[in-house]
Amino acid sequence: MSGQGLQLALFGAGRMGTIHAANIVAHPRAALAGICDPDDGAALALARAFRSRVRTTADVFDDPAIDAVVIASAASTHPELIDRALACGKAVFCEKPLARDLGTVRSLAAAVEASGIPFLLAFNRRFDPGFASLASRLRKGEAGAPELVLLTSRDPGPPPLDYILASGGILRETTIHDIDMARWLTGEEPNSVYAVGAARTDPRIAAAGHVDTVMVTLTMPSGTLVSINNSWRSAYGYDQRAEVHGASGMLQLGNVLPTPVIAWNAGGGSSDRPQPFFLERYAEAYRRELDYFVSRLEEGGSLSPGAGDGLNALQIAEAAEVSMRSGLSVRLS
Amino acid sequence: MSGQGLQLALFGAGRMGTIHAANIVAHPRAALAGICDPDDGAALALARAFRSRVRTTADVFDDPAIDAVVIASAASTHPELIDRALACGKAVFCEKPLARDLGTVRSLAAAVEASGIPFLLAFNRRFDPGFASLASRLRKGEAGAPELVLLTSRDPGPPPLDYILASGGILRETTIHDIDMARWLTGEEPNSVYAVGAARTDPRIAAAGHVDTVMVTLTMPSGTLVSINNSWRSAYGYDQRAEVHGASGMLQLGNVLPTPVIAWNAGGGSSDRPQPFFLERYAEAYRRELDYFVSRLEEGGSLSPGAGDGLNALQIAEAAEVSMRSGLSVRLS
Amino acid sequence: MSGQGLQLALFGAGRMGTIHAANIVAHPRAALAGICDPDDGAALALARAFRSRVRTTADVFDDPAIDAVVIASAASTHPELIDRALACGKAVFCEKPLARDLGTVRSLAAAVEASGIPFLLAFNRRFDPGFASLASRLRKGEAGAPELVLLTSRDPGPPPLDYILASGGILRETTIHDIDMARWLTGEEPNSVYAVGAARTDPRIAAAGHVDTVMVTLTMPSGTLVSINNSWRSAYGYDQRAEVHGASGMLQLGNVLPTPVIAWNAGGGSSDRPQPFFLERYAEAYRRELDYFVSRLEEGGSLSPGAGDGLNALQIAEAAEVSMRSGLSVRLS
Amino acid sequence: MSGQGLQLALFGAGRMGTIHAANIVAHPRAALAGICDPDDGAALALARAFRSRVRTTADVFDDPAIDAVVIASAASTHPELIDRALACGKAVFCEKPLARDLGTVRSLAAAVEASGIPFLLAFNRRFDPGFASLASRLRKGEAGAPELVLLTSRDPGPPPLDYILASGGILRETTIHDIDMARWLTGEEPNSVYAVGAARTDPRIAAAGHVDTVMVTLTMPSGTLVSINNSWRSAYGYDQRAEVHGASGMLQLGNVLPTPVIAWNAGGGSSDRPQPFFLERYAEAYRRELDYFVSRLEEGGSLSPGAGDGLNALQIAEAAEVSMRSGLSVRLS
Repeated sequence: MSGQGLQLALFGAGRMGTIHAANIVAHPRAALAGICDPDDGAALALARAFRSRVRTTADVFDDPAIDAVVIASAASTHPELIDRALACGKAVFCEKPLARDLGTVRSLAAAVEASGIPFLLAFNRRFDPGFASLASRLRKGEAGAPELVLLTSRDPGPPPLDYILASGGILRETTIHDIDMARWLTGEEPNSVYAVGAARTDPRIAAAGHVDTVMVTLTMPSGTLVSINNSWRSAYGYDQRAEVHGASGMLQLGNVLPTPVIAWNAGGGSSDRPQPFFLERYAEAYRRELDYFVSRLEEGGSLSPGAGDGLNALQIAEAAEVSMRSGLSVRLS
Repeated sequence: MSGQGLQLALFGAGRMGTIHAANIVAHPRAALAGICDPDDGAALALARAFRSRVRTTADVFDDPAIDAVVIASAASTHPELIDRALACGKAVFCEKPLARDLGTVRSLAAAVEASGIPFLLAFNRRFDPGFASLASRLRKGEAGAPELVLLTSRDPGPPPLDYILASGGILRETTIHDIDMARWLTGEEPNSVYAVGAARTDPRIAAAGHVDTVMVTLTMPSGTLVSINNSWRSAYGYDQRAEVHGASGMLQLGNVLPTPVIAWNAGGGSSDRPQPFFLERYAEAYRRELDYFVSRLEEGGSLSPGAGDGLNALQIAEAAEVSMRSGLSVRLS
Repeated sequence: MSGQGLQLALFGAGRMGTIHAANIVAHPRAALAGICDPDDGAALALARAFRSRVRTTADVFDDPAIDAVVIASAASTHPELIDRALACGKAVFCEKPLARDLGTVRSLAAAVEASGIPFLLAFNRRFDPGFASLASRLRKGEAGAPELVLLTSRDPGPPPLDYILASGGILRETTIHDIDMARWLTGEEPNSVYAVGAARTDPRIAAAGHVDTVMVTLTMPSGTLVSINNSWRSAYGYDQRAEVHGASGMLQLGNVLPTPVIAWNAGGGSSDRPQPFFLERYAEAYRRELDYFVSRLEEGGSLSPGAGDGLNALQIAEAAEVSMRSGLSVRLS
Repeated sequence: MSGQGLQLALFGAGRMGTIHAANIVAHPRAALAGICDPDDGAALALARAFRSRVRTTADVFDDPAIDAVVIASAASTHPELIDRALACGKAVFCEKPLARDLGTVRSLAAAVEASGIPFLLAFNRRFDPGFASLASRLRKGEAGAPELVLLTSRDPGPPPLDYILASGGILRETTIHDIDMARWLTGEEPNSVYAVGAARTDPRIAAAGHVDTVMVTLTMPSGTLVSINNSWRSAYGYDQRAEVHGASGMLQLGNVLPTPVIAWNAGGGSSDRPQPFFLERYAEAYRRELDYFVSRLEEGGSLSPGAGDGLNALQIAEAAEVSMRSGLSVRLS
């Protein structure tokens, strides 16, 4: 890392790429050393907006001045970009998923582990001030030993059908975040999973053999019980809540509202609805995630969550899929 | 019913009996015509406090001036008192359970049905202003068709061990209220139940083969998914919440706090904790339950919930027990 | 007081009388020994509903078995009933006001003081669980020494115009409750008052020389500053809030909502509106006020608030009126 | 403005300057063209962190490529920098105050007006999502015509004593923000002001003839009444609230909490405390303020609030000072 701060190259000039670009330039110890995207116009616009420049993939990986890469491109490009970054010894900040199939995820996780290259898998919720505070206070013992964990994630609407088919369904796409959260909050890996689901929002989802509404029960070795509920329909915005009940209390994370305005009239008191979706809800999480990445690379420490977290979460999501389709609870080793 | 209002005899001068007695005398169209309890002192004290008189069971059932009985005595006495009330043609307000074993419950429910005698099984939560408002607004379509139901009931502490053993455990004692609520809110009977549990609060509970912490998943024929979580430990008081997520919104019932005072200081903003237990939390529900009973008898209408609701809820609780012990989900017909 | 509990006679079979009657019969240590009202039908209906009997004023005051009177009749009758109760040595529970004019209030307060008869002036808010908790926690030092007090009272609508004219306006009718609360919370008598007002709800109020909207500033000898705001219009129900900011924190009392249900949809999260008016909002306060009266008479202790509190609050309200009409702040001795 | 976005030079490399610098570089249509600060080290550090360069004041004003200046330097430098910017025809984003004395403020406001140069006086609260939403919804009529406005601003602690002396006291330093808010929310200029104050936090403040706790009443021509309360002591963080009661409802702005975590235990439910102070509380307001400045310059529209708002607010604050010292309410023309 030069005296000019951490030199970062960005793959992907879409929504997530734009967010990361703004966060990089506003970070006092990071610089946006280049932007790669197959869409030249998008790359150029982003480069102009943030005083950076468009570069080719090869150029990025060949440039020894680049310390790290931020991978925010299409999911299908992740495996190759990760491989090249590991080969060139560049630290990696990678949007999830590592890859779409379990086999590739497993081999990528092994390669990351073997390489010793700093690698951050961007499970963004862990960096949200609310989820992070919940986790930290739980570890300090504010609720005692966890006994019941309730996780709610509901999206404002389903993804496009082709995205659903590519992603492998709600358990792999949405529930996987809650599975990671359950693992992180309890500090345990589940020993059983049971899932039920239904298709309620769009008949094409049912016709494609998918569901849009699930409830998943995880049991943890300590006896802690976890219940996850997800829906791809939420009339009131993006619903992201968590609750941990322990031996001496409960820690509860509510939704974030855009403003604390309440309007009172004959109908009662009416608040804002929660943030519309992840870009707004997790704006601060993305800032902190980037700051964490920069700070840990400066300090030389390891990064978490890593590729192994992505692998474990995916294995549990796939077991949940087996449970949902069989009606049986599935043991996890 | 005479011009003096509905004449009610009360069985049981304990905690619940005292509550019902006060509500009867404060009701402008009901009168407390007598109190029966094997504990003469308790019966006499209650009679003096509320200007009533102590009576024998036989005297109550023989008195044609008594319109109805309120059964708030020990659970073991319920079957015989119900039988006698049906035989004498007196309307019945009965605290749960009808009986402790499924066979007796089934035959009592059949007898009630056959008799045509007005019978109210006091699932008190249905009369709570909050739960009742939630149910009523749901039926008006304020959340659209239900898709996800979350029910939380956590007691401040476990019952005495001998009570646990007599009651048959947390699923029959505590979860049964949430099962009734799930049936009532969705208007459906579940087609499957899955339960997991753990013993966390007291090693004697585990040693007795019981649990104190459960998560139960019900699936409904419409596709609606229900998750119930219960604990016999809650450091912050009696936790009674419900949430129904539907196609067009969510209805959410929070806890009731004794006062709306918030104390702000360097540690943050601190509210009261929820009401300590059912006597305080459901004080208004007990008033409304009695008023409903009186008003419906005046109008001549049928009563709900009835004995059949007690039977159905118990059958589901017993299936949950089978699931928890087997690790399998259980189909319900 | 006999072994049958405190024998209470009730003056007034209107709205407040009905509430007190139900609370008396539901109290385990009090009995409703008679009801007096110039409206025979109302008195009889109440007597039948609560198993009491109609009595004449003379009969009540002549009956040595009657321990105390509850005065909930028209304000114009209060002075005479108080005088007779003092003469007969019966304890008094008196709805406010003592009287409508300051001279009579002053002489009644002196007479009560001289008599030594237990006398409760029913400033109901002091018995509300929320206001009482705020006061008690303040005295325990939870906010440190008070520095700023904000009191909000807004009625759902203005009283009838003739009532306004008889009562002497919003400062004497509504603000007087907040003035009593300010005195009680701070434990101080103000040394200055400044008031501004406006007529916004009904042109007839302005035409009659009255206002319906006021802001009153009180300064206390310690330096504590108090701001009261009142309106006779509140589209969202009865608004009753208080806030005390002190050296080490703030205690804040919000409104009481009928239920804790929140409905979430595209418009946001919507709570109930506050209770509609005082009968619902202070139902529990009326129960506790009666219980306090009964318990203190049993114990033989003095009662608070007393007639002197009514006198002091009225003097401050009248000074506020002078301030509002003159535009000057008014010193209080 | 070039194709590279709006070229901004920044005066001041302190706390506020750093915030504005980060917001400028993260803005897709603005660029940080230079930083001026008498502290060379601070200027250089900021320039390195955000890829800009250190410049002299003369260099900035001579450079035709610079479109606008952001004045975030010491208050004493504001008048001269404003004058030079007006002379060079550069748009101005100026932190408050324009100047410390009313005469200079008056002549600066006149000069800005005469120049026609776009000028933004950074009353930051107007750009806060919460205050802005309150104002916007009020203008849409969600509460009907305003009748009562309550504004609360309490700082975590008093400024240093020399700062207090320089700033002219709490009314000019803190209350002025609430005065601007009252003007903005009601759309009216007050016709009277009454203020009371006390010194409670530090005897040196009293000894210097200042106060740290005030209540201010404004009356508006429409009859709307405004109550402002301020303290330089708040044990629970930075308290920034507003409430507008109107003919058809109330709009209420609560505090912003760092996270929506609630911890429940035997002591109740405990939230975070509000943000510690303005840097955190108004982080989003500063972003929006900058975006507003950039967007309005692009569009060519006028800017608000302007220098005249600073003048009017200061005149009202000075009248409040007169009221507090005299005990009389002060008429405003």
